[in-house]
Amino acid sequence: MLPAQIYDALLDIVGSAYLRIEPSQLVPYSYDATPLFQHLPDAVVFPGSTDEVARILRLCAQTNTKIVPRGNGSGLSGGAVPIEGGIVLEMNRLHALDEIDTANLTATFGPGLVTSQLSKAVEAQGLFYPPDPGSVVISSLGGNVAECAGGMRGLKYGVTKDYVLGLEAVLPNGEVIRTGGKNTKDVAGYDLTKLLIGSEGTLAVITEITVKLLPKPAAKQTAMALFDTLSQAAAAVAAIIAGRILPATLEFLDQPTLKAVEAYTHAGLPTDVAALLLIEQDGAAVVVQEEMERIAAICRQQGAREVRLARDAQEGEALMSARRATLPALSRLRPTTILEDATVPRAQLATMVERINAIAAHHGVMISTFGHAGDGNLHPTALTDARNPEEIEAVEQAFDDIFRTALQLGGTITGEHGVGLAKAAYMEVRFGKAAIEVMKGIKRAFDPQGILNPGKMFAAQTPRRVVVNHDP
Amino acid sequence: MLPAQIYDALLDIVGSAYLRIEPSQLVPYSYDATPLFQHLPDAVVFPGSTDEVARILRLCAQTNTKIVPRGNGSGLSGGAVPIEGGIVLEMNRLHALDEIDTANLTATFGPGLVTSQLSKAVEAQGLFYPPDPGSVVISSLGGNVAECAGGMRGLKYGVTKDYVLGLEAVLPNGEVIRTGGKNTKDVAGYDLTKLLIGSEGTLAVITEITVKLLPKPAAKQTAMALFDTLSQAAAAVAAIIAGRILPATLEFLDQPTLKAVEAYTHAGLPTDVAALLLIEQDGAAVVVQEEMERIAAICRQQGAREVRLARDAQEGEALMSARRATLPALSRLRPTTILEDATVPRAQLATMVERINAIAAHHGVMISTFGHAGDGNLHPTALTDARNPEEIEAVEQAFDDIFRTALQLGGTITGEHGVGLAKAAYMEVRFGKAAIEVMKGIKRAFDPQGILNPGKMFAAQTPRRVVVNHDP
Repeated sequence: MLPAQIYDALLDIVGSAYLRIEPSQLVPYSYDATPLFQHLPDAVVFPGSTDEVARILRLCAQTNTKIVPRGNGSGLSGGAVPIEGGIVLEMNRLHALDEIDTANLTATFGPGLVTSQLSKAVEAQGLFYPPDPGSVVISSLGGNVAECAGGMRGLKYGVTKDYVLGLEAVLPNGEVIRTGGKNTKDVAGYDLTKLLIGSEGTLAVITEITVKLLPKPAAKQTAMALFDTLSQAAAAVAAIIAGRILPATLEFLDQPTLKAVEAYTHAGLPTDVAALLLIEQDGAAVVVQEEMERIAAICRQQGAREVRLARDAQEGEALMSARRATLPALSRLRPTTILEDATVPRAQLATMVERINAIAAHHGVMISTFGHAGDGNLHPTALTDARNPEEIEAVEQAFDDIFRTALQLGGTITGEHGVGLAKAAYMEVRFGKAAIEVMKGIKRAFDPQGILNPGKMFAAQTPRRVVVNHDP
Repeated sequence: MLPAQIYDALLDIVGSAYLRIEPSQLVPYSYDATPLFQHLPDAVVFPGSTDEVARILRLCAQTNTKIVPRGNGSGLSGGAVPIEGGIVLEMNRLHALDEIDTANLTATFGPGLVTSQLSKAVEAQGLFYPPDPGSVVISSLGGNVAECAGGMRGLKYGVTKDYVLGLEAVLPNGEVIRTGGKNTKDVAGYDLTKLLIGSEGTLAVITEITVKLLPKPAAKQTAMALFDTLSQAAAAVAAIIAGRILPATLEFLDQPTLKAVEAYTHAGLPTDVAALLLIEQDGAAVVVQEEMERIAAICRQQGAREVRLARDAQEGEALMSARRATLPALSRLRPTTILEDATVPRAQLATMVERINAIAAHHGVMISTFGHAGDGNLHPTALTDARNPEEIEAVEQAFDDIFRTALQLGGTITGEHGVGLAKAAYMEVRFGKAAIEVMKGIKRAFDPQGILNPGKMFAAQTPRRVVVNHDP
């Protein structure tokens, strides 16, 4: 329950149209795209300006009220779930695309702008914003920055962190800061820009973003390669890299994923192969053609049963749609889909997929794996049923094994989804006590009262996912 | 003076061969490449392992002793000057190139490795490490990471921060932490890797570095364009970017710099032009040729008096040597050379150079300007005499005006040299009180006692450079 005094103050800041406290209106803000994590907030507020954000945070600091920033709720680590209640700060009114600066190759916009809207707007000017998380058509760029979203172009182009040049952000005490700017080079002070990216809304609330843009590549080509064994596919990935080619996209689907996609799309994909690689290169037309031919030859040398080079953009898009269909296709098979993102150095790809399969078999759970082969960022996806506690327990144990295996192989617990609630318990395993203490010190430097997105990043106790019922 | 107890403990850790306390031996460690900042340390210690670094830092924490990490002393902001005395921790024994991982496209090495040695080693394997600070043949990579070194390839390839994937570092309390790793994607926890890059040795001591590598570009071509006016040169830069070309290198020399270089090199450069652009593109041979021809045409359209395309690598190297000769050429003209790096968004290039010239004239000081036109990172360089206090005062005032002008134009106080002692007084002007308080909180999270590289980044009081005499 929100105290009347705070309700009145919020009303004064945003007006009644932008404040919700009815339980039925709060439910959509009690979860994000991560299964099994849920908690009702006490209120949802929709600020319309940086100044309103600052006033809301000042109010929260004065009244010691917890507050959770939220974009469009497409996150996959529970980062936007108000697990301790409090106020949800929904940022999607701040969605203006303020500027595309073609001289400095930057764009500046509000955190509520949807990722694909930015991409389209800059492409219309012959420019290119590479990060493309799977949720690109719904995710907000503020969420992308908070989680450091990745996507299918990580190998060649990097992730959100590699493009954000400057931020406006509001500290938990209500002070507005500006970090970075439009400068390509800027080494003044500690890099608060990069620190805020991926900080999951635990340090400050992002109110404006400036990113760098690239010239749009002139051409693009897509290919699909089919392999009878996993190790052939992994050898092809290694041989492409050894050939000193960095494809824009180098995606992997295992057989169970492929079967699900074919059952869903009826695109005519063969389902009797062990692995499919989807490869895309962009750049100058002559280079793209030459490199795609070399890639096709490499795949054949490594034993590909078939290599299909798309003849045009439309056929390329059709091939890529198989990859984009993975999650909806898998989601149809069982009531609950848990998409994870254990990540390993690229050279450990085959080992990791084999270990995932062995772990799934050991625990008797269904796990399909697809993901970004080029950057070792895998998405082992459990198909399960949240209503079956025993099965969920087995899934949890399987993921526990998977995360620890990724770490043993020099990998990490999350490549692009974030820590949030889902991985908080693994932070100390990943980093050790000394580094965690430093991170907690950083949290205190920004948020001494601990009011901003509490319960995230640093675990209270258990790695288990829980459905929290909250009686408002 | 180093207390006997600390001396004995250091002796026990590193042995007598790696400890210096004689004043004559300390003098080379009392300054770096930044004019006018100097202070004798009480001791210099040369650790031979991470464990020795950890033991030394633990000793310093226990005895509340100040300690200043140092690479090869090529820094340009006074970052390695032990301005409050204490121990200099010279890291250059840790210079092993541990691994070039051609499967994961990474290299791992000690902080003492010299930048150009890494570049050569990876190029021998067909790979590429793009950051190339001007001091590349002497600078240590630990120093590059501490200062986030840039160089001539920033526009297309970014800076040191864009390549470091993981670090081993020792906290001021002696605890060893590992950040990042070989993963292309890794969003676990606050990004301590990026936070340590550019933290100027104030947060932790870097003991191992892992960087990502790129495939080595197949071809490279160089061109020189000469302009009668500054605005023509700036318009050419803008038109190249507007043409959606990102050259690997896009350097600018003004007339005074050009005259100094010609007097030094006798390379036959014309000295009656207002500005020279040096342009280099790399990539696939066909693309490089096509883009360089477009660049040449753009320069002519913008009124270039002459555009010279190098016919081969040797001629390209000869053109680039004019740029590399700028600092030695300018240094010959007066006893003291103060190289600054005020930076503006690329589109403000011409305005900034004009303002610098007006400021220099106003204060009656000699300032030549050259730098990285493509990324707005200018090096206004004062030619002066440290023995003349009045002239130095005028130079200080001119730089004060220059830094404030850069900030007014949306720029920053340092593009690639760091804050150190030289810019500490401008930090609050750049960021405001609230952001500075957060940065100081971050400093406390790592270094609660304030023993690591004290006096840097955050100013005590004055922006003036001072020669500090220290009687040991």
